[in-house]
Amino acid sequence: MTRTLLFGLGAIGIGIGQYAAKRGDVELVGAVDSAPTVAGRPLYDVLEADAAGRPNPKVYADAGAALAETKPRVVLHATGSYLPDVLPQLIECARAGANVVSTCEELSYPWLRHPELAKQLDAEAKANGVTILGTGVNPGFVMDTLVVALSAACQDVRHVRLARIVDVAKRRIQLQRKVGVGITPDEFRAKVATGRFGHVGLKESCWLIAEGLGWRLDSLDETIDPIADAAGNGIGMRQTATGRAGGRTVIEALVQMSAGADRPRDEIEIDATPPVRATIEPGVMGDTATAAIIVNAIDRVVSHGPGLVTMLDLPPVASRGIP
Amino acid sequence: MTRTLLFGLGAIGIGIGQYAAKRGDVELVGAVDSAPTVAGRPLYDVLEADAAGRPNPKVYADAGAALAETKPRVVLHATGSYLPDVLPQLIECARAGANVVSTCEELSYPWLRHPELAKQLDAEAKANGVTILGTGVNPGFVMDTLVVALSAACQDVRHVRLARIVDVAKRRIQLQRKVGVGITPDEFRAKVATGRFGHVGLKESCWLIAEGLGWRLDSLDETIDPIADAAGNGIGMRQTATGRAGGRTVIEALVQMSAGADRPRDEIEIDATPPVRATIEPGVMGDTATAAIIVNAIDRVVSHGPGLVTMLDLPPVASRGIP
Repeated sequence: MTRTLLFGLGAIGIGIGQYAAKRGDVELVGAVDSAPTVAGRPLYDVLEADAAGRPNPKVYADAGAALAETKPRVVLHATGSYLPDVLPQLIECARAGANVVSTCEELSYPWLRHPELAKQLDAEAKANGVTILGTGVNPGFVMDTLVVALSAACQDVRHVRLARIVDVAKRRIQLQRKVGVGITPDEFRAKVATGRFGHVGLKESCWLIAEGLGWRLDSLDETIDPIADAAGNGIGMRQTATGRAGGRTVIEALVQMSAGADRPRDEIEIDATPPVRATIEPGVMGDTATAAIIVNAIDRVVSHGPGLVTMLDLPPVASRGIP
Repeated sequence: MTRTLLFGLGAIGIGIGQYAAKRGDVELVGAVDSAPTVAGRPLYDVLEADAAGRPNPKVYADAGAALAETKPRVVLHATGSYLPDVLPQLIECARAGANVVSTCEELSYPWLRHPELAKQLDAEAKANGVTILGTGVNPGFVMDTLVVALSAACQDVRHVRLARIVDVAKRRIQLQRKVGVGITPDEFRAKVATGRFGHVGLKESCWLIAEGLGWRLDSLDETIDPIADAAGNGIGMRQTATGRAGGRTVIEALVQMSAGADRPRDEIEIDATPPVRATIEPGVMGDTATAAIIVNAIDRVVSHGPGLVTMLDLPPVASRGIP
């Protein structure tokens, strides 16, 4: 039983908590979320989960109080996509002696955009003897860790092509908004210009792949474009990343998230000897899979040496439980 | 540059050596094989590879001399499928202070059939400060490690179904013979009765999966049957394993290797929340992929703590090299 604190009870945090509540090896000792709708309430009530006779710990509005009173071994952190926003929270957890598994997309490979913050966080983790990991289904798994894992069977990898095609029609409304459903192409481009729109983590995935394969990328370029229907209404987005090394393109990655997307799937195509072409169809379901991987990573993070790590540092994160 | 000794220069060992010779981070310091066709010859000549100005070490007939003279950091071992046959070789390597990556199929999960030998080997590895790993494309990857890796995205895994369909028509003749091409069903069954026929490692793969997912199997049953053409001539084999836990079937695995097999592929279907269905089509090419994974595993084995390990103990084994 690993003493576990939830940090952030948005849609993903709730999903993480619901899966954690079902796991026999996870002890939920509380949660942190300052939203008035949840702060102060019993956690299992917020999760709409069965406490099954266990204590029903509370949702704290304040992280410091939660960490001090519940003394968690691990924090499952789901409050934001951007590292500068969440860094103080991560440091507070580390200083309380808690390991952290976070959904923060930029944290999946923080050395890309925030090398100084990554260095600081690594130092905090080591000073406090804890391990900090950023992961999720994407970034963190289908477009990076899984690609590197598949390369085990390959000699002389020459090129990697990835595609994740998601039909957002039946997904939660927040996700639809995040990918531009219902806005015009002009509105879409204005949002892109803020630097905080689109899928966060595609570049991080490409860097994880490059690190895993021992490649040094010379450049990594990203595009984000709206997808509109015949009437000009936004129905989603198409985002690409292109990595170059040694004078040629070595990584091509595509994330398409749109309402009614044709043949939702994850595709990984490794041009190597032998080649490997893997298709997951339909693609790995985002929110549920992210909740899964965050909880499934607990064991690996707790048993790893201190520091800021990536999925490539850990033995396979696996689903655990009695069938 | 990791000082590397090849142990066994059969078809797979040659393939391993050819890939190792191309890797900039592997230094081939020699090989061991007592076959008169290769013993005493320069290694790169036997590999039909370009020494590229490097020293051309020799093929030793005797493992003791090879280990003493070349002082390898790692041995890439490919001499047999059955642990009792190769155990003395593995122990000799460990006592010489060399880490070992072996193709021995039973070594991928040696606690299944040979718990006492596994214990002995683990003790030898620890006493000598080395790491010993059995791996390959199957067992070792497509029907076990990859399955566990894919489960990261899953909650509540209920059932795993695996299939590896291989068309052996264009594969080496030894492999065709190994799967029953050209013999009658009666001859096939007589060979099965010897206990040394069919694909070695299917049960090991199932146990690796169970260990990875935290399952305790109550039973694991295997079948091996010939596949014949209309005229009754053997064209291959069909091998299954069925694992049960908690009173129901939780793992169903199929290996079909036959001449002209329809739609060669690897399929992994995880019944979970969310479900994951992955297809690699055509399937991962056996011999080349095994050579790849053996060499790709060097870094992970060398940097792991001492003992007898499985692929589930290691961070992702990855292909390395400049694109």
